[in-house]
Amino acid sequence: MTKYLVFGHKNPDTDTIASALTFAYFLNQEGHEAEAVALGEITGEPAFALDKFGFDYPRVIETAANEVVHVALVDHNEPQQSVDDLDQVQVDYVIDHHRISGFNTSQPLFYRAEPIGCTASILYKLFKEYGHEIPQNYAGIMLSAIISDTLLFKSPTTTDQDKAIGQELAKIAQVDLEAYGLEFLKAGADLSKQTDEDIVEGDAKTFILKDQHVRIGQVNIIGFDEILSRKQGLLAVMEAKRQELDLDLYLMVLTDVLESTSLGLAIGRDLSLVEEAFDTKIEDQVLELAGVVSRKKQVVPPLTAVYNR
Amino acid sequence: MTKYLVFGHKNPDTDTIASALTFAYFLNQEGHEAEAVALGEITGEPAFALDKFGFDYPRVIETAANEVVHVALVDHNEPQQSVDDLDQVQVDYVIDHHRISGFNTSQPLFYRAEPIGCTASILYKLFKEYGHEIPQNYAGIMLSAIISDTLLFKSPTTTDQDKAIGQELAKIAQVDLEAYGLEFLKAGADLSKQTDEDIVEGDAKTFILKDQHVRIGQVNIIGFDEILSRKQGLLAVMEAKRQELDLDLYLMVLTDVLESTSLGLAIGRDLSLVEEAFDTKIEDQVLELAGVVSRKKQVVPPLTAVYNR
Repeated sequence: MTKYLVFGHKNPDTDTIASALTFAYFLNQEGHEAEAVALGEITGEPAFALDKFGFDYPRVIETAANEVVHVALVDHNEPQQSVDDLDQVQVDYVIDHHRISGFNTSQPLFYRAEPIGCTASILYKLFKEYGHEIPQNYAGIMLSAIISDTLLFKSPTTTDQDKAIGQELAKIAQVDLEAYGLEFLKAGADLSKQTDEDIVEGDAKTFILKDQHVRIGQVNIIGFDEILSRKQGLLAVMEAKRQELDLDLYLMVLTDVLESTSLGLAIGRDLSLVEEAFDTKIEDQVLELAGVVSRKKQVVPPLTAVYNR
Repeated sequence: MTKYLVFGHKNPDTDTIASALTFAYFLNQEGHEAEAVALGEITGEPAFALDKFGFDYPRVIETAANEVVHVALVDHNEPQQSVDDLDQVQVDYVIDHHRISGFNTSQPLFYRAEPIGCTASILYKLFKEYGHEIPQNYAGIMLSAIISDTLLFKSPTTTDQDKAIGQELAKIAQVDLEAYGLEFLKAGADLSKQTDEDIVEGDAKTFILKDQHVRIGQVNIIGFDEILSRKQGLLAVMEAKRQELDLDLYLMVLTDVLESTSLGLAIGRDLSLVEEAFDTKIEDQVLELAGVVSRKKQVVPPLTAVYNR
C-alpha cells in the first residue's frame, strides 16, 4: 500500500477536480491510500458539480513533498502547471489528454494519455479494464467533466469515445444528459458572483512557446454583453498579472457556450503576432475568435506556429 | 487512414524489434497503413527470434521525415535513442516501459507506459482491450521479447503481469515456455559469430546523467571465460567509441543469464564514481556487479544517484 496525493493542474477546472477525485477512488480500489487534492480554490463550474453530486471539496495544497513521496497527476503533465515542488516527489501515475512538455522522470511509471476530449473519459476506460464499478456520484462528476471539456460535445476536441462514454455515465449517474448538460453549462457561465480576478485567473495556464511566456485564460459565458461591460476591470487584472509574471502575452478567451464562438481580450508586448495567428484585427484589446471554443486545439496551435517561425 | 513508421530504439534488441512489428500489425488492424522499421542492423538474439517465427527483417532507417509525417515509437521515448530527425515528425503513439526523459510534443498523443518488464506485455494488453487476435507468429516474437527483457522472469524488472502474459503467449505460439526460453537465451548468448564491435555496441544506449554522457552496453552470456578472453578487444572498441562520442563513461555489463549475475568493463574520466555507485573496486577495468541483471533497475539508478550528488 502506497500513500498518494492525486491532483490536477493549477486553477482547477471541472475535469481536473473530477479526475483527481475519480483516480484517487481508483487507486484506493487498487489497494493504495490515495487522497485527491486541488492546486487552487474551487469555485464556479467545478463547485457546482461537486455540490450537485454531494462531494466535499478537496483541500488545497501548494507543495506535495512535505506530505508524501509518491504522487499521481491527472489532466496535466507540464511542471509549471503542477505543484511547485514536482521535482521533489516521485510521479508514479499520469492520466492526461494534453501534449507532453517538460515532463521528465528518473523511474519508469504508469502514463496513460489519449488524444480525446476529457481525462475523465480515459478514466472511464481504466475502470472498465480493471473491472471496478463506477459509483453513481463519481459518474456524475465524470460526466460533468466531459460536458465541461467538450462543451456538451460541441468542441472540436470531442471524439466519438467521449460521446459514448458520456451517454454511459449519464445512465449510471441517473441524469438526463441534455437537460443536465445545459443546466451545468449555464451554472458555469453565471459570472454574477465572480470577481474580475476570478474570471481572468480562474482557468488561466501559462505556456512557454519558443521562449515566450504566454498566459491564456478562458471563461464560459452566455452572450457577450455582460462580460464586455466588465472589460476594463478584466484588462486591469490581466495587465497586473502580466507585469507580475513578466509575461509576453496574456490572452483571455471569452467563449459563448451556446453559440460555440469566442471573443478574445489581449494584452502583450507584440500583439501583431496574435493578429497574425488568428488572421484578425485587434481593436481596443478585443479580437474576434469566430468558431473558437478549444484553447488546446484552436488557440495554442496557431500561437505556437507564429512564435516558432 | 494515416501512414505510420513504427520503430524502437537504436541498437535494436528483441523487445524493440518485436514491439515495432507487433504495434505496426495493431495499427494496421485499426485501419492505418503502418510499417515496422529498425534503427540499426538486426543481429544476434532478435535475429534468432525473427528466423524462428518466420519474419522478414524490418528495413533499417536513420531518418523518418523524408518518408512520413506521423510515427509511432515503441520501447523508447528519449530523443537521443530515436531517429535523428524526431523533431521533424509528429509522434502520435508511444508504447514504452522506460522513464520519460527529454520527450516533448506539440500535440496531444496516445502514450501508454507501464512500469513492467517488457513493452510486448503492454502490447498484449492493448490487443485484449481492442479485441484484436494475436496471430501465432506474433505471439512467438512477443514471447521472445518478454524472455529477453526479463531473462526468463529472473530479472528484478519482471512483474506478475509479464509472467502471466508470457504463459498466454506461449500457448498461442505453441511453444514450451521453459524449453524455448533456454534455447533462445543460449542462442542470444552465443558470441562466436559476433565481432567485438557487435558485442560492445549491439545493445548500447547513451544516457545523460546530470551533464555527463554515459554509454552503457550489455551483453548476455553463459559463463565469463569466453568473454574475458576477448577483454582487450572489447576495451579497444569502448575506448574508440568513448573518444568518438566524447563520453564521460563507457560501461559494459556482461550478464551471465543462467547465473543471474554480471561483471562490468569500465572506461572513463573518473572511475571512482563507478566504484562508489556499485560499492566495489575496479581492477584492470573490470568490476564485479554481483546479482546485477537489469541495466534499467540496477545500473542506471545507482549511477544517476552518484552523478546527481
